[in-house]
Amino acid sequence: MSKRLFNFCAGPAALPEAVLQQAQQELLDWQGKGLSVMEMSHRSDEFVSVAETAEQDLRDLLAIPDNYKVLFLQGGASQQFAQIPLNLLPDGGMADYIDTGIWSAKAIEEASRFGNVNVAASAKGYDYFAIPGQNDWQLSAEAAYVHYTPNETIGGLEFSWIPDTGDTPLIADMSSTILSRPLDVSRYGMIYAGAQKNIGPSGLVVVIIREDLLGRARATCPTMLDYTVAARNASMYNTPPTFAWYLSGLIFQWLKQQGGLDAMQRINDAKQQTLYSAIDTSELYSNPISPVDRSWMNIPFRLADDRLDKPFLAGAEERGLLNLKGHRSVGGMRASIYNAVPQAAVDALVAYMAEFEQQHG
Amino acid sequence: MSKRLFNFCAGPAALPEAVLQQAQQELLDWQGKGLSVMEMSHRSDEFVSVAETAEQDLRDLLAIPDNYKVLFLQGGASQQFAQIPLNLLPDGGMADYIDTGIWSAKAIEEASRFGNVNVAASAKGYDYFAIPGQNDWQLSAEAAYVHYTPNETIGGLEFSWIPDTGDTPLIADMSSTILSRPLDVSRYGMIYAGAQKNIGPSGLVVVIIREDLLGRARATCPTMLDYTVAARNASMYNTPPTFAWYLSGLIFQWLKQQGGLDAMQRINDAKQQTLYSAIDTSELYSNPISPVDRSWMNIPFRLADDRLDKPFLAGAEERGLLNLKGHRSVGGMRASIYNAVPQAAVDALVAYMAEFEQQHG
Repeated sequence: MSKRLFNFCAGPAALPEAVLQQAQQELLDWQGKGLSVMEMSHRSDEFVSVAETAEQDLRDLLAIPDNYKVLFLQGGASQQFAQIPLNLLPDGGMADYIDTGIWSAKAIEEASRFGNVNVAASAKGYDYFAIPGQNDWQLSAEAAYVHYTPNETIGGLEFSWIPDTGDTPLIADMSSTILSRPLDVSRYGMIYAGAQKNIGPSGLVVVIIREDLLGRARATCPTMLDYTVAARNASMYNTPPTFAWYLSGLIFQWLKQQGGLDAMQRINDAKQQTLYSAIDTSELYSNPISPVDRSWMNIPFRLADDRLDKPFLAGAEERGLLNLKGHRSVGGMRASIYNAVPQAAVDALVAYMAEFEQQHG
Repeated sequence: MSKRLFNFCAGPAALPEAVLQQAQQELLDWQGKGLSVMEMSHRSDEFVSVAETAEQDLRDLLAIPDNYKVLFLQGGASQQFAQIPLNLLPDGGMADYIDTGIWSAKAIEEASRFGNVNVAASAKGYDYFAIPGQNDWQLSAEAAYVHYTPNETIGGLEFSWIPDTGDTPLIADMSSTILSRPLDVSRYGMIYAGAQKNIGPSGLVVVIIREDLLGRARATCPTMLDYTVAARNASMYNTPPTFAWYLSGLIFQWLKQQGGLDAMQRINDAKQQTLYSAIDTSELYSNPISPVDRSWMNIPFRLADDRLDKPFLAGAEERGLLNLKGHRSVGGMRASIYNAVPQAAVDALVAYMAEFEQQHG
């Protein structure tokens, strides 16, 4: 008998129990074929069908226009930080980056190794507690693209709007926000997302790229990092991470069964309201982010006295509320409430927070 | 009830049933922790312990000396084809490569994009049916390293000896031969292997590198492709493919339970003898490889009349003998008999081959 607890981990993160059950049931014998999905050639009819179905389901969920390629790659968002300039920033060229926290800073640092980066705007002036409005951005006319991080997983800062960059391609690291609500993909040149939050297990990164941005890789780009090679080979230039791809496909099906991203938006909106409202109405807990820029998926909060952190975490664990400790660079608490974290988990957390405040407030 | 068939796939390949059963049993609740191993932070005590145990078990199995780092990376062997020159071939430098078939040719092609490649020896003169002896190699004095492919997964050609390259580091793509028998790691500067044959599921590549070869990456090497960064961060510069790492650890434990690599050598030797002997004593089947250079893991064979290929494959599938079709570039048949393919599978194949020959020979 498995006992499943509530898991608020920032990633690798909670997965839907129904998906894990299906994977468990067919782990040794996929659809009566006599072998695991992990044991099948990626070029077999069976796996190609798994892969194509996953892509189509993702296209359906996000209403991805036909002139975009969907790639299933490896190396996580961190590898994309290099892959993007190697594919899209010409030698000696310039790109605009928006700095909103730790993940955008990492993207900026890596891109700077391959070209000229103009930090067109930074949340530093707001101590990373608010996102600078587009009126304050200094976009450069010659930028090859504009890169930003719609949701900062560590800081808990999220864009509620899509930047307007005119004809300059907009590139977004959506690792911790993709699939949390509907998205107008046509506003982007490229979207990428590490899987281990809202897509599936770690070891997979999904890239959605407009076709006119292909064919631009530098001569020094490794073949495996060239989006054009990946697109031409349907993400099977070499053996892809088949199990992660398969499991992501199950999650896309689960999302469709939940009612798609309109439904997820309603569910996630309710979850974030429950938690922020508990924080804002308490004397003990606080979240520093400007209300309009608060993340729906990653909610950091502090206790008024950090000597209470340890007892808070210990009591949470006793109640089956796991992985609430904040990122080591920030401290405090963080609740990541991705798609697979149900309202019941948030309700249990909020009840515990109230109980703890009564005892220690 | 799952019915497990015999799977001769070249990769992703058969996995030990006992390992899949353990993974299945704990898929929703790893060791009573209330969550899947896929849902745990890679920085949690629990996962770090999984990761470190896997590394130690691999070190035990291969008796890896202490002055080697073991890295768990992404991108497969194909990404290594670029990563090796980016880390180990100085700008304008030269490396020696040995050409023994399709996989070494791919390594050569990619390395040529980053520096000067001297093809020091080629099996082409033997139609790729035999490996040129080291007396015929033209190694260059200034080579940064010598690269070779101990086992050609498609051609079915395998080195039974380790080249002597003196002080020049020897680098080996061991994707389809690692863990099939004991190995003297100290003879190598670096060994790498895509997991999806003898290590675990796809989406993971293991690199074993001598410490003095670290710290040499080019300025233009993406951070995620720099072995030194991976080594300094215990392969957790970013989120690693946690499930593939975990499952590989279960396979290392299984290998220890089998008696380690001495035992695997005995078992694999018996398997290959059974199959090659069936091929050599028949009128219908043939394998073209020079007997001393025959692969233990990947055994290609042809039928005397290729119009019999289709009925042979159909009959095999009826008997639960899966994935015997040869690589599309070669045709004919191929039986990959990795560690997880038992003697019983080879016996069943050989019995079917005899039966088919009686009917069609």
